Amino acid sequence: MAKVYNFSSGPAVLPHSVLAEAQSELLDWHGSGMSVMEMSHRGKEFMEIIHDAEHDLRRLMAIPENYRVLFLQGGASQQFSMVPLNLLGEKKSVDVVNTGHWSKLAIKEAKHYAKVNVVASSEDRNFSYVPAEDTWQCDPNAAYLHYTSNETIGGLQFPFVPTPPEGVPLVCDMSSEFLSHEIDVNRFGLIYAGAQKNIGPSGLTVVIVREDLLDRALRITPTMLNYRVHADADSMYNTPATFPIYIAGLVLKWIEEQGGIKGIAARNEEKAGLLYHTIDSSGGFYSSHIETPFRSKMNVTFRLRDESLNDSFVSEAKKNGLVQLKGHRVVGGMRASIYNAMPIEGVKSLVHFMQDFARQHG
Amino acid sequence: MAKVYNFSSGPAVLPHSVLAEAQSELLDWHGSGMSVMEMSHRGKEFMEIIHDAEHDLRRLMAIPENYRVLFLQGGASQQFSMVPLNLLGEKKSVDVVNTGHWSKLAIKEAKHYAKVNVVASSEDRNFSYVPAEDTWQCDPNAAYLHYTSNETIGGLQFPFVPTPPEGVPLVCDMSSEFLSHEIDVNRFGLIYAGAQKNIGPSGLTVVIVREDLLDRALRITPTMLNYRVHADADSMYNTPATFPIYIAGLVLKWIEEQGGIKGIAARNEEKAGLLYHTIDSSGGFYSSHIETPFRSKMNVTFRLRDESLNDSFVSEAKKNGLVQLKGHRVVGGMRASIYNAMPIEGVKSLVHFMQDFARQHG
Repeated sequence: MAKVYNFSSGPAVLPHSVLAEAQSELLDWHGSGMSVMEMSHRGKEFMEIIHDAEHDLRRLMAIPENYRVLFLQGGASQQFSMVPLNLLGEKKSVDVVNTGHWSKLAIKEAKHYAKVNVVASSEDRNFSYVPAEDTWQCDPNAAYLHYTSNETIGGLQFPFVPTPPEGVPLVCDMSSEFLSHEIDVNRFGLIYAGAQKNIGPSGLTVVIVREDLLDRALRITPTMLNYRVHADADSMYNTPATFPIYIAGLVLKWIEEQGGIKGIAARNEEKAGLLYHTIDSSGGFYSSHIETPFRSKMNVTFRLRDESLNDSFVSEAKKNGLVQLKGHRVVGGMRASIYNAMPIEGVKSLVHFMQDFARQHG
Repeated sequence: MAKVYNFSSGPAVLPHSVLAEAQSELLDWHGSGMSVMEMSHRGKEFMEIIHDAEHDLRRLMAIPENYRVLFLQGGASQQFSMVPLNLLGEKKSVDVVNTGHWSKLAIKEAKHYAKVNVVASSEDRNFSYVPAEDTWQCDPNAAYLHYTSNETIGGLQFPFVPTPPEGVPLVCDMSSEFLSHEIDVNRFGLIYAGAQKNIGPSGLTVVIVREDLLDRALRITPTMLNYRVHADADSMYNTPATFPIYIAGLVLKWIEEQGGIKGIAARNEEKAGLLYHTIDSSGGFYSSHIETPFRSKMNVTFRLRDESLNDSFVSEAKKNGLVQLKGHRVVGGMRASIYNAMPIEGVKSLVHFMQDFARQHG
């Protein structure tokens, strides 16, 4: 097996020790004689797995008791419908911040059900910044204020948690920065995250929702899209995605071993610092279009001055065991996704390659 | 590792060779240096996996070209909403057959969006039979006719495929008998199946839908619940449940090795025959409440004459490596789910145990 560093934006690299543990017990989980994939979701073995996963997530994030943790399916894309369907209630409109591709999809979907006010947008400068919060046109009667704390495709990350008007719940698509740095859950009404960046394999979505927001669903809400239904059933209204939940549980234990989210966050700062320093000290060979305070620590996007070198950059990187570096077609250029599980050795390897490549082609 | 035969109704037993292959390549799929769980869903490796899975399913089931295969999330429960949301169109009502627990849930959900006509029901005799088709009160103007071809909880299976009125699409929840015997896909407008019985791990739903039914979605349909969106994107509108799709692909290859669905069906007949013979020749110690022609070959439900022995039946079975035999709380008694991947040795082992137990306690 060739050693490969995988910079995919998601599904993405998982901790080696997690995969090794999953491999060792794939045919027989803890002497049960069964693979986790074969277990009844209502049997005592799987109940232990899902209970531990929730317990570990609550401890890692210090989730208060008046918040529910839900293990759902459908990814962030399904949350784009679930959030307005469940939180609109008697209100007529929702507030959103537009910072790029995923914000725009959330806005488009919310428009099926509500009047959507874009309270701030950075589209005027190609989503290279987060608009200053004191310029936002928030509505104190909005059903909620929605933002995307890290734009996976653009490589833009909020350096702050917004403060909505009194009584307006804050809703965050945290998919691509979930568990990457400490946050105060009390600031939020609802947090959602697709698992396939920092939690585990695809097919799992984690939702953290304040209990008082569970009873506002519109009448047209499909049962499977109703948070209250899943909360009342402890994520067991129907068969959940058992294997992804199991892997997520292993990842959560791995985070604990790394010093918790505080430990992970320090490593994430260091990894992102190495890459942005390489970009900034390349004499313009590489550049980032994101303004410095808003550069993502998860998805480092950059361009080559000579874009005709893009293909050779990608193919030579691959020869060096550095894969999935091509940027999303919407923004072009390159993207190195360096989620929690990307080891610092992978980032250092990329840095050396980038320096060598610049030397050869500069 | 103790040898265990797992009679869970789903998630359920998987072929040993499939799990062994998944284990061997869990850290490195085909020399890619990555686990399948870490692969970008749009990378060439995973595109090969999902393409092969669809291709193999099409060949095994002889799916005609004018049908689309979708790999979705949310299980049958989400289909209970998706079917009416997508197929109601200009119509006002849908026809359904009520043969038990899952039929009832499908009916309840369809009522959110349509007038629901129950064209036939076996609730009068505790869901022990399928009403004769010539007694069904079908509406030629219904948007579709829905039935549950195998009731997992009750243990009731349709021995025939219904014929709806001309122009009315037939819709089938085939979750717990999918791929267990040959069917003519041309008879159906839409087939759906949660994966966790005969296809793979939970978190994956397979939908087979005739192309002309893709453009009838109601305006309120969430994007993620719209078949057309997923069909146009080849199940890649958002990140699909990649690992479950990979395991499903391995299961499909395993079915091919078993002689295809024809070979599987013959083994299923044999396995169910052994169990029902044991029940019927027990002198009343065991009994099935399902009328003979409608007894499920997937979920064999039975009762002990002396129900005070239920707990010792379950615990002594477990000591013999036979697990998950307790019936669903809705119907009580026992249930042996003997999906495709349950080896005949497991059924024989259960038969011997049942005979011994009857001898000791009869």
